[in-house]
Amino acid sequence: MNAEIITVGTELLLGQIVDTNFAFIAERLAEAGINLYFKTSVGDNEKRMSDTLKLAISRSDAVIITGGLGPTVDDVTRAALVKTLNLRLVLNEQVLKNIEAFFAVRNITMSQNNVSQALVPAGATVIENKNGTAPGLLIPYENKFVIIMPGVPREMKPMLTDIVIPFLKSRFQTEGLIKSRVLKTFGLGESKVDELIGDLFRTSTNPTIALLASSTEVKIRLTAKARNEGEAEELISGVETKIRERLDENIFGVDSETMEKNIGMLMTMQGLTISTAESCTGGLISSKLTDVPGSSGYFIRGVICYSNQSKIDTLDVKRSTLENCGAVSPQVAEEMADGVRKVAGTDLGLGITGIAGPGGGTKQKPVGLVYIALATGNEIISKECRFGGERILIKERAAQTALDMLRRHLLKI
Amino acid sequence: MNAEIITVGTELLLGQIVDTNFAFIAERLAEAGINLYFKTSVGDNEKRMSDTLKLAISRSDAVIITGGLGPTVDDVTRAALVKTLNLRLVLNEQVLKNIEAFFAVRNITMSQNNVSQALVPAGATVIENKNGTAPGLLIPYENKFVIIMPGVPREMKPMLTDIVIPFLKSRFQTEGLIKSRVLKTFGLGESKVDELIGDLFRTSTNPTIALLASSTEVKIRLTAKARNEGEAEELISGVETKIRERLDENIFGVDSETMEKNIGMLMTMQGLTISTAESCTGGLISSKLTDVPGSSGYFIRGVICYSNQSKIDTLDVKRSTLENCGAVSPQVAEEMADGVRKVAGTDLGLGITGIAGPGGGTKQKPVGLVYIALATGNEIISKECRFGGERILIKERAAQTALDMLRRHLLKI
Repeated sequence: MNAEIITVGTELLLGQIVDTNFAFIAERLAEAGINLYFKTSVGDNEKRMSDTLKLAISRSDAVIITGGLGPTVDDVTRAALVKTLNLRLVLNEQVLKNIEAFFAVRNITMSQNNVSQALVPAGATVIENKNGTAPGLLIPYENKFVIIMPGVPREMKPMLTDIVIPFLKSRFQTEGLIKSRVLKTFGLGESKVDELIGDLFRTSTNPTIALLASSTEVKIRLTAKARNEGEAEELISGVETKIRERLDENIFGVDSETMEKNIGMLMTMQGLTISTAESCTGGLISSKLTDVPGSSGYFIRGVICYSNQSKIDTLDVKRSTLENCGAVSPQVAEEMADGVRKVAGTDLGLGITGIAGPGGGTKQKPVGLVYIALATGNEIISKECRFGGERILIKERAAQTALDMLRRHLLKI
Repeated sequence: MNAEIITVGTELLLGQIVDTNFAFIAERLAEAGINLYFKTSVGDNEKRMSDTLKLAISRSDAVIITGGLGPTVDDVTRAALVKTLNLRLVLNEQVLKNIEAFFAVRNITMSQNNVSQALVPAGATVIENKNGTAPGLLIPYENKFVIIMPGVPREMKPMLTDIVIPFLKSRFQTEGLIKSRVLKTFGLGESKVDELIGDLFRTSTNPTIALLASSTEVKIRLTAKARNEGEAEELISGVETKIRERLDENIFGVDSETMEKNIGMLMTMQGLTISTAESCTGGLISSKLTDVPGSSGYFIRGVICYSNQSKIDTLDVKRSTLENCGAVSPQVAEEMADGVRKVAGTDLGLGITGIAGPGGGTKQKPVGLVYIALATGNEIISKECRFGGERILIKERAAQTALDMLRRHLLKI
């Protein structure tokens, strides 16, 4: 069986919103082993919507449509559907009640337009909308199915995962599935990763291996086709093991796992505490660390000090160091790291100083120059980095590099 | 004239990447006054790519294709194009030289596959790729045009804006353009905004008005069709003035302007300094404030203190207040704000304490309860908020609300 997606809305074709529904639906279909061959976006125009639907239903077993279901005159999905598939609309009392209840709870007057949302094609199955007014519809058509859902992501997503995907799986008895795993690396460039595992991803066909580089990490995506979960897992872990042997601690996380989550696990396991002293990152490191539930157990204090005076006052950085080496120097980063460790009474201290730009750079100390230090009580290690990009990207790269330095230290203990 | 877009890549249909190229191209076409009626995504399959191209070229004057141009066997755009449009390929020496130079600079051995990227349809115009190896192509076909570009955004974007859009504008002498402006509001729910300006957006047809609500703000988008920039500007500002009269200081920014950028402008104009004391937001407020170039001129110090002891040590919060009112209380937020203002010696101090969750909530003080205080030297104002959502969303909402409190104060001075 094969499916296709149609997303409806002029705002998509004006580039005013990014079509995130597409990727979400596509990923769920892939997991369920349902082939997706085409996806079309079309504006709120009945004729073009109708043409698109005709083509789709001629070549696919299931057509999944999102958007164009609102109560306003702009929304044409329903009208195009009724004419193209020659459907007869009937008022569905249950849907009308749900819509009335939705407005009653929110104490809003229901408009006459909302009543039209309760008109449902005869023979269609209604998919309840728990987060809005327009219901979803599952419409059988010549041994095929047209499925329509609202375009608002939080209304569409539960309908898709709870009702539509299980229905398609059972109806078409799909065999097999597609499973992906993403290994996230830090500290190696894309070409270095290619050099280390290129032979694997040029020869492996199941799973396939793809590299996705972003400004702060390189992801390795393994995608396996298999008859069931167990087989897919086996295929993926076989290759994953080989990749891990070669990339080792450069891999910091799997799928949606973040660097800070990984650090949280290591900190908790080892019963350590940490404090941070930030200059150029301005609190980004502490904000990332505290994104993790339970981080109050190991993250004790953060200080953001831009000025020399505040480095002296709050971290006991020596005035002579600031004067002799400059605020952006390995020495100051080290004194910040050890200073915050001592004043906060934590096991570890992380210090960072640099020039995020766009102003403040010199020939000797250009924008993007950053020093990062980690104080452990036994030693203070520090590192010089030079980052490219604009201010916010430099902050992001500096924060991730500091977190990675901490992570690698925790792995060694 | 009308255009359509085809994005090529199996990774799109597996939901592994979000198709951001689509929105980017669509927005540039709209700005240039070029109608976009359809967008199709198709996998790396020659037959389906060919079918999609045939349909597109039959109904559109310009077909813009991205993706499927890489040097690997998966990439089928070139092959489908050649067969469908019956093109003859010739080796383009200049393109070959550029590709060779690209590899030489990076000290990488060029593979034989890369040579195929230098094969160009006879009669086509080559669009240089400054950030990669695959060139773009502008192929005339029966008074129409097929334009192909690589799928990598940083390679595609300059080709589109520098070459393709100016070419299409001049070739088709498009008249008129579409211009959008986004007014960003904070502090009003979507239904409240609807209540205040609903009559405008239900009657205004040029510009059209649309509301886009996200978890922290409601955006109002005005989209005008006009013959030229000046006319578009006039249409938009006419309605913008009416909206600003009604929403006033609830509007904090235009287009990509952020809350913190707006604050930066106000702080600089008024010559004020600020420091922050954060508990539940963990540095997110200071990180946002320091995202703005030049923020070191007014942002002096930030303190992140989770524990009671660190609130006492670094901010002079009274132990008795912590014991009597609890760490999450308006009194503690106020003492944090005034404490950080005093120890850092700044004009303003911002304090925030709350429960970001998922743990730590009680019946009296549930997850999402946050107190925010602003100390000005003359007074200390504070505010109780209750935010929904998961930890990261609560942090985001709390930080934005705190920044908005600061912004409204600065507007009043």
